[in-house]
Amino acid sequence: MAPSAPRLIVPIDLKKKPWEQKLPLHNRWHPQIPPVAEVMAGEYFRVEMVDANGGNIKDDNSSLDVKLIDSSSFHFLSGPIRVLDVDGVPAKPGDLLAVEICNLGPLPGDEWGYTATLDRENGGGFLTDHFPCATKAIWYFEGIYAYSPHIPGVRFPGLTHPGVIGTAPSMELLNIWNERERQLEENGLKTLKLCEVLHSRPLANLPSTKGCHLGKIQQGTPEWERIAREAARTTPGRENGGNCDIKNLSRGSKIYLPVFVDGANLSTGDMHFSQGDGEVSFCGAIEMNGFLELKCEIIRGGMKEYLTPMGPTPLHVNPIFEIGPVEPRFSEWLVFEGISVDESGRQHYLDASVAYKRAVLNAIDYLSKFGYSKEQMYLLLSCCPCEGRISGIVDSPNAVATLAIPTAIFDQDIRPKTKVPVGPRLVRKPDVLRCTYDGNLPTTKNPASIM
Amino acid sequence: MAPSAPRLIVPIDLKKKPWEQKLPLHNRWHPQIPPVAEVMAGEYFRVEMVDANGGNIKDDNSSLDVKLIDSSSFHFLSGPIRVLDVDGVPAKPGDLLAVEICNLGPLPGDEWGYTATLDRENGGGFLTDHFPCATKAIWYFEGIYAYSPHIPGVRFPGLTHPGVIGTAPSMELLNIWNERERQLEENGLKTLKLCEVLHSRPLANLPSTKGCHLGKIQQGTPEWERIAREAARTTPGRENGGNCDIKNLSRGSKIYLPVFVDGANLSTGDMHFSQGDGEVSFCGAIEMNGFLELKCEIIRGGMKEYLTPMGPTPLHVNPIFEIGPVEPRFSEWLVFEGISVDESGRQHYLDASVAYKRAVLNAIDYLSKFGYSKEQMYLLLSCCPCEGRISGIVDSPNAVATLAIPTAIFDQDIRPKTKVPVGPRLVRKPDVLRCTYDGNLPTTKNPASIM
Amino acid sequence: MAPSAPRLIVPIDLKKKPWEQKLPLHNRWHPQIPPVAEVMAGEYFRVEMVDANGGNIKDDNSSLDVKLIDSSSFHFLSGPIRVLDVDGVPAKPGDLLAVEICNLGPLPGDEWGYTATLDRENGGGFLTDHFPCATKAIWYFEGIYAYSPHIPGVRFPGLTHPGVIGTAPSMELLNIWNERERQLEENGLKTLKLCEVLHSRPLANLPSTKGCHLGKIQQGTPEWERIAREAARTTPGRENGGNCDIKNLSRGSKIYLPVFVDGANLSTGDMHFSQGDGEVSFCGAIEMNGFLELKCEIIRGGMKEYLTPMGPTPLHVNPIFEIGPVEPRFSEWLVFEGISVDESGRQHYLDASVAYKRAVLNAIDYLSKFGYSKEQMYLLLSCCPCEGRISGIVDSPNAVATLAIPTAIFDQDIRPKTKVPVGPRLVRKPDVLRCTYDGNLPTTKNPASIM
Amino acid sequence: MAPSAPRLIVPIDLKKKPWEQKLPLHNRWHPQIPPVAEVMAGEYFRVEMVDANGGNIKDDNSSLDVKLIDSSSFHFLSGPIRVLDVDGVPAKPGDLLAVEICNLGPLPGDEWGYTATLDRENGGGFLTDHFPCATKAIWYFEGIYAYSPHIPGVRFPGLTHPGVIGTAPSMELLNIWNERERQLEENGLKTLKLCEVLHSRPLANLPSTKGCHLGKIQQGTPEWERIAREAARTTPGRENGGNCDIKNLSRGSKIYLPVFVDGANLSTGDMHFSQGDGEVSFCGAIEMNGFLELKCEIIRGGMKEYLTPMGPTPLHVNPIFEIGPVEPRFSEWLVFEGISVDESGRQHYLDASVAYKRAVLNAIDYLSKFGYSKEQMYLLLSCCPCEGRISGIVDSPNAVATLAIPTAIFDQDIRPKTKVPVGPRLVRKPDVLRCTYDGNLPTTKNPASIM
Repeated sequence: MAPSAPRLIVPIDLKKKPWEQKLPLHNRWHPQIPPVAEVMAGEYFRVEMVDANGGNIKDDNSSLDVKLIDSSSFHFLSGPIRVLDVDGVPAKPGDLLAVEICNLGPLPGDEWGYTATLDRENGGGFLTDHFPCATKAIWYFEGIYAYSPHIPGVRFPGLTHPGVIGTAPSMELLNIWNERERQLEENGLKTLKLCEVLHSRPLANLPSTKGCHLGKIQQGTPEWERIAREAARTTPGRENGGNCDIKNLSRGSKIYLPVFVDGANLSTGDMHFSQGDGEVSFCGAIEMNGFLELKCEIIRGGMKEYLTPMGPTPLHVNPIFEIGPVEPRFSEWLVFEGISVDESGRQHYLDASVAYKRAVLNAIDYLSKFGYSKEQMYLLLSCCPCEGRISGIVDSPNAVATLAIPTAIFDQDIRPKTKVPVGPRLVRKPDVLRCTYDGNLPTTKNPASIM
Repeated sequence: MAPSAPRLIVPIDLKKKPWEQKLPLHNRWHPQIPPVAEVMAGEYFRVEMVDANGGNIKDDNSSLDVKLIDSSSFHFLSGPIRVLDVDGVPAKPGDLLAVEICNLGPLPGDEWGYTATLDRENGGGFLTDHFPCATKAIWYFEGIYAYSPHIPGVRFPGLTHPGVIGTAPSMELLNIWNERERQLEENGLKTLKLCEVLHSRPLANLPSTKGCHLGKIQQGTPEWERIAREAARTTPGRENGGNCDIKNLSRGSKIYLPVFVDGANLSTGDMHFSQGDGEVSFCGAIEMNGFLELKCEIIRGGMKEYLTPMGPTPLHVNPIFEIGPVEPRFSEWLVFEGISVDESGRQHYLDASVAYKRAVLNAIDYLSKFGYSKEQMYLLLSCCPCEGRISGIVDSPNAVATLAIPTAIFDQDIRPKTKVPVGPRLVRKPDVLRCTYDGNLPTTKNPASIM
Repeated sequence: MAPSAPRLIVPIDLKKKPWEQKLPLHNRWHPQIPPVAEVMAGEYFRVEMVDANGGNIKDDNSSLDVKLIDSSSFHFLSGPIRVLDVDGVPAKPGDLLAVEICNLGPLPGDEWGYTATLDRENGGGFLTDHFPCATKAIWYFEGIYAYSPHIPGVRFPGLTHPGVIGTAPSMELLNIWNERERQLEENGLKTLKLCEVLHSRPLANLPSTKGCHLGKIQQGTPEWERIAREAARTTPGRENGGNCDIKNLSRGSKIYLPVFVDGANLSTGDMHFSQGDGEVSFCGAIEMNGFLELKCEIIRGGMKEYLTPMGPTPLHVNPIFEIGPVEPRFSEWLVFEGISVDESGRQHYLDASVAYKRAVLNAIDYLSKFGYSKEQMYLLLSCCPCEGRISGIVDSPNAVATLAIPTAIFDQDIRPKTKVPVGPRLVRKPDVLRCTYDGNLPTTKNPASIM
Repeated sequence: MAPSAPRLIVPIDLKKKPWEQKLPLHNRWHPQIPPVAEVMAGEYFRVEMVDANGGNIKDDNSSLDVKLIDSSSFHFLSGPIRVLDVDGVPAKPGDLLAVEICNLGPLPGDEWGYTATLDRENGGGFLTDHFPCATKAIWYFEGIYAYSPHIPGVRFPGLTHPGVIGTAPSMELLNIWNERERQLEENGLKTLKLCEVLHSRPLANLPSTKGCHLGKIQQGTPEWERIAREAARTTPGRENGGNCDIKNLSRGSKIYLPVFVDGANLSTGDMHFSQGDGEVSFCGAIEMNGFLELKCEIIRGGMKEYLTPMGPTPLHVNPIFEIGPVEPRFSEWLVFEGISVDESGRQHYLDASVAYKRAVLNAIDYLSKFGYSKEQMYLLLSCCPCEGRISGIVDSPNAVATLAIPTAIFDQDIRPKTKVPVGPRLVRKPDVLRCTYDGNLPTTKNPASIM
């Protein structure tokens, strides 16, 4: 008589490729990717998912798999899931879909994950101009805790969350996405500043048939060819949610997603055991296979009632999130600040991205004094439960961004004190797994640093 | 025999102007502003301070004082305070000055503050292209709580902190500041993007003798003239700390400031009863007169040991902060997301400032459905304990920023639910105090909004 | 190459009885119950367990199973587990066994539990003189949350923990237990006061062969007969840990258990999805089947180093516990107070048990005004994450005890306000499952209560 | 125009004795002690108060003042305060008085306090049979923090609260108190058990004219004589609130007090900078002079609506408390357990007081291994923010009580680890101030302890 266990609607077999699963996964956003499952409002159901790279990154002793990663084919999503109300009427465009995350975690028997930086020529990351090499750290889970043989002396409880969760876009919204990203790709280098600072490429990832997977739509068919040419890539978060990478979206959270197509067509994937705000190393959370246990409600007409469009059309909206009551509790935080002056000393105008970059660089350098390589700390700040804040965004010309690190994740006291740290003399081994960088792009030097 | 009460080293008489105080205040950064007090390492002392605008904003029924504010003369700082070790040797350049905030609060008998947006032609704010008018809300304090007759139905505990705390720059550092900000002012419009979005002016505030106060240095003397022409304005946070506006820098926090001049010359001011991350409305915290009770330690040689320069010189550093254990505890948060697509629908590249702007606009629009004017919510999000996060900064081309609001500050349930909000039909009165905007700059419309 | 999943050392098959499991369970403490499994220090392992009543309480529409429960046969424990160091040397008497709870939860596919009060003639409970009937409420789990069809309008995140965890006693310690409990049973009615107040029987549960299960020791053998007559019952927490019912002993906690026998012989069971401090209704947590994922360390000689005996022998010690960092976060609590004056108005001397009884009765009566039966609230306060505190224990003659309830677990505002509660007129249905009480013991009336 | 500062209604002059104050204080409960001030519902007002002992305990180098304390004259209360609604109608018997604590703290310029154990012949304490001597530790405050020269290596943020807050009893209620406490005094030794364990005397403190202060009622008048003979002592918490010693009753809390007399006649005193649950050393919080800033509301008829009598009359009620959102945040806790077996090894029946005593003794012994005397730890556990819980109250025959200590208050890691503590060899100096015990009562030995 009991509601008991959640109904498993998307199972994963880890011995199979993402596209070989019983309910094949997809890695693009398009309204015409057909649903693979159906749920009722109020029903308690379970979705399993593969890690962001679909099993291509291994628990081994090399980061070569990271260096050679296929950047056209990742974010294999489970779904789409069609949502009906208790009378069997599907969610409709204009509704809000409330998705409650009741539980989530790694797949049983597969309690591990990885954090990586991509090679500068093959994806990069927030600090790729400083750290151009592909690197990798493996993490093992002991229940709530993760530890890495590649970053010794650190252990922390995970704030596990799905990196990607979203509804399918309508054709109209998809066209808006493709058009604005194409314009950036074409004109961005001339007008947009951050690329000058980050030296990261490409500016956007436009639709491409290479590496494309569309779930139940058979590759090679004319339908597949058409949709693959139109379907949006999954890297950026957009109006439908998607890759929003909100680290606190864990147990007990609720997500209010706009509905753009009949049935809502919810997809999710890219589970993170833990992530720092910003996910700075790009492949940067602790990426893992995992499961979600969910409940949906439909708020009829909710888009108009609760969301205000922010742009030229009623589709320019964003989801709303409600954060749950169960999170690790840290009492002490060490906070690093950055202002919008870059490494060359140039002043930028209220640029929170530049300020955050400086805050992260400050934190990496500081922590490396306690026996770590900078690459270890770059990966750590990408995946540990650190908070990235926009502290001041009005005090021209400097934006102030801060990065707050819970001190309890280290097995030593990392606060400044009169007794000085001994720094790199005491580097903890082993280090992260690291490849060479064989490209020609210049590395940003920190002119004043002695290290 | 007891250490008992902290020694009051900078008293404030609220009946006097900032420059008439017994120990006159200053509103510029310069190494040659002479110390007004001296403390020993380990000593427990008290500093009083005037509000950011030095008493010019009144607890009255008009926002005209905000509209006409003298933007050349604010941030009246208490200090400089010279810090010696227990042997009487002053802090030296290259040291770290650890400042512990043991206590702080409003001045007894003066338990009120204000939040304001400046007129677009006279200071602006993060959303000044949407909200060009000068507005003001008065807040009254009941112990830990603040409430405003101008924003009914809201009450919250303050996370009180000093907006400005910093050490004096050396001449070398001051020259670096002035040079880089001058270059921005001269070249910024051509190369820097955010100004295209925000339409805010000026890009930087260069030194100016107008409105300048230099503490004990007598106005009109040649020394005053020279220093006033060189001294840096206080608006931006910089290498010395300064206007860092870190909202969690409250009771029990510790700040590790780099020392650039003999004695450190610590100055502080701009007390905030409470502030939201970003302080978006600019004059945006709950600004108040207040006191700080502090203890200092000197970490000899600490700059080299703990800070890594991030720029062309060893002076390109940032302070480090340690957050204390006493903060209001909120269990539920509603989170608004923004992506780096602006109101015209244009795609920006990993721009956290644009993303945060969209998140704040989303939150304002959402909350205004619960019976508030947008101006009320703009002021509220500037001063309530909301968190602004950089959630994703690597998912090209979209930065994802989030604004999290503790739901408990409202006297109604502001979460989305099936029963729709009745919105502006139920606007709570009274509204914020508001002036007209008489300028010619265009207001940014939200093309798709019906409101 | 990965440590990956924990090794399952005690599996449970829910279709079998506790004594039919592959590794048969035990429900007594005795040094000669042989280990069923062996682990190394540092190893990550998994233990599964049945619920406190070994499957006898069903998810059905009656509380008859509770009324007729066999009170001689419960607390079926998984283990004993023998612990060795990395050199294969077992834990020794005098060591401390540090057990870290890395993870725990319900058994997959079996996400439900129950809370019950026992009949006054068959077990009773803290308030059995007020509530003599057997009652039952079923709880279903949605990930972190539990809700009950029998207590509508309540939902809360679980702080899951094992009710029983302990090491095997030595014969010397076992004899101490049996002797002191026998003395209580024989002399208690004359000298010990609480029984006058609680009217609960028996005072202690002495060894009995009835209902006894001893793991691998075959029932009916002479060895079984001897051990069954000696082995301690599991109801009370004692020097070895055991049924300590500490509600915060959840993910990330660490337990430092004294070792009394070679190998430590760790046993655990009685998993609680959630429990209130005191577990007042006796079968009072949300009882469920479950699993633990653990790591052990041996602190050689730790008993002498860290524990001080509190009694006539060096064995009179207690375990130490370290609480982990992941707990539900509640911001508002409503607190009910009790003083050591009983329902007849009689004054007791600094009696925290009487004071806590009054606090719990106060809370039940208060909450019943919001549409609940008192039996619903009695069960709720037994299993929800409420805190029972000894606030004052020195202010003669009154002990002050408090019961704090997180307000967020209710779907209505339960704080006092000018608008009065409508009380029992609005009782929510359905109620808990309830049997008749057919005994003759008097029910304690609350003389002044009108209800 | 601003509500601004709270109105000071009860001022304290620290240079005067409690009975010489402008508004003289009182140290008894009686309906006929006349109000000294009047407030309106909704008004924001300030009450100052002297410390529990009215200035008799000094910040000096001796504990002789503690040993010789006048135990008939303490708890000097500020008030009574008469409360009216906005129409000028006083609170009436049967109403609830909601008192919000908006702010509180030490008196400016007087930032220190003390913790003490009384001599066994002159007041005692929870562990007086183990620690019969009068001892004292002085605490100095640095803003939120307290530290003591007598307990080195410890510093913690205070959770400041009034130990005593209550309304005046009616004559009927007063008679109930006096009658039940007299019966205890007369018959208690025969029937009530805890006194056998604690060896503390007297069982109750009956009315006495010695040391009595009745506010505005002139000593020596017939009225004074009559009231002094009837008026209840303030030691125990009772139906009117009073000395409830709830440590979390800090900033932002709300207290719902029953009203028994016209005007409610609210009195408060005995401010604690910080206190541990139980306040075990009796004079056990950090006692200090202080102020409260309050707001009152009257809930008409609220007693009947919200409180259920628990005893023979409608007056047998208890207040309700709401805990505020601002508390120190600790992430790690070390938990000590006690069961209801006493130091002689005797089993008690579900006795939470005995169990808590054992938990406290366990904690004292444990902590003394880290370089402290037991007297230091007894005082520390009495005043630091430790939590005393009733964990299990149904598992016959053992009650399980726990004492949880936040590890962050120590400057060393106090958790068990493989490296053993060096214990008393490293005792930190200086120790607490200590007198000799010159009485004849036996000290309870811990038979198995080597120390």
